[in-house]
Amino acid sequence: MTESPGVVDLLGVLAYAELSAYARMTEDAATLAPSLADRAALSELAVTEYAHFRLLRDRLAELGADPAEAMSPFVGALDAWHAQTKPADWLQALVKTYVGDGIALDFYREAARHLDPSIAKLVDEVLVDEGRSQFAVERVRAGIEASPAAAGRLALWARRLVGEALSQGQQVASARPDLALLLVSGEGATDISRLFATLTEAHNKRMATLGL
Amino acid sequence: MTESPGVVDLLGVLAYAELSAYARMTEDAATLAPSLADRAALSELAVTEYAHFRLLRDRLAELGADPAEAMSPFVGALDAWHAQTKPADWLQALVKTYVGDGIALDFYREAARHLDPSIAKLVDEVLVDEGRSQFAVERVRAGIEASPAAAGRLALWARRLVGEALSQGQQVASARPDLALLLVSGEGATDISRLFATLTEAHNKRMATLGL
Repeated sequence: MTESPGVVDLLGVLAYAELSAYARMTEDAATLAPSLADRAALSELAVTEYAHFRLLRDRLAELGADPAEAMSPFVGALDAWHAQTKPADWLQALVKTYVGDGIALDFYREAARHLDPSIAKLVDEVLVDEGRSQFAVERVRAGIEASPAAAGRLALWARRLVGEALSQGQQVASARPDLALLLVSGEGATDISRLFATLTEAHNKRMATLGL
Repeated sequence: MTESPGVVDLLGVLAYAELSAYARMTEDAATLAPSLADRAALSELAVTEYAHFRLLRDRLAELGADPAEAMSPFVGALDAWHAQTKPADWLQALVKTYVGDGIALDFYREAARHLDPSIAKLVDEVLVDEGRSQFAVERVRAGIEASPAAAGRLALWARRLVGEALSQGQQVASARPDLALLLVSGEGATDISRLFATLTEAHNKRMATLGL
């Protein structure tokens, strides 16, 4: 099997992203949800992230990689991202789920474009949006309707999520050149411009969907 | 369908026990596990608890009960139990998973004995021990072998878990007489003696299995 050199890195960062997102969403659900029904709804999304982690870990093992070793270079950056973007309330938690994960997912999807089709298919499978948008979007829009002053505060929060994601992403890219190369392979600078245009467009679309 | 009056209470307390155990085990895994592999192993158990929560919530809905309403009388006691038994390290977390959940499960199983067989079957299904013992028992025994002084400390910890469980259990029983009646229906005082004998025996067996 000829794998791109960054493939273990990509599956490793994605696996730890899912494992840590599962833990953080579980905590946000337990500590911030305004009702037991909301707590269950966010927990449901968290458990889906865990199921994705399981798929990625098993695939790493199939490739002959040690899953823990493949994840470990990314623990610092992802933990730092979560520590710096700890939601203060329920609406911030939902915006983080929708906007924050959205940006990360766009990155992983771009990286997967250049991979062996079976890996690209797995990455697409774990990145599919199972109703995450519907749940978070409805609750956030209702929250803004109930308290219009929340919109400005949440827009700032979303900007902070993006800033922190880019900053951690840059550090990961400079530490893991094989992974960074997956994002630009083939077309160099042109591809980087296209990448940023794609990410910005997707982010603006999500903000508009939230009413922010 | 003729249901015992305590059945919604029983499914409600069990549902919230699973939902809160899932959140606490997820947190313990993320903060206390000594390796990513151990973190994944405890997370796997946590996600299983969530799957049980889902079954119980759906069954409550089928019975025409509002799941959140059925759970809410038990949130205080179960949250208090978790707050008073927050593990300080990885071995305490594993002992809590094995011993603490074990006691709770014995209680629920006893209560289910007197129920409609289809409910009793569901309760048995969600209480089945899917390898929980194997994982926790192996790690705790290895921990004691590596550091024999840990045994005394963990035995004290297990005693505290039982004490807190009994204290919260008594409060729940006096606040929810229909639920308490499930435990003694038919035979009154004789049944209570038998219940305590059963619980004590099961607990001692678990302690011996752990080497405590």
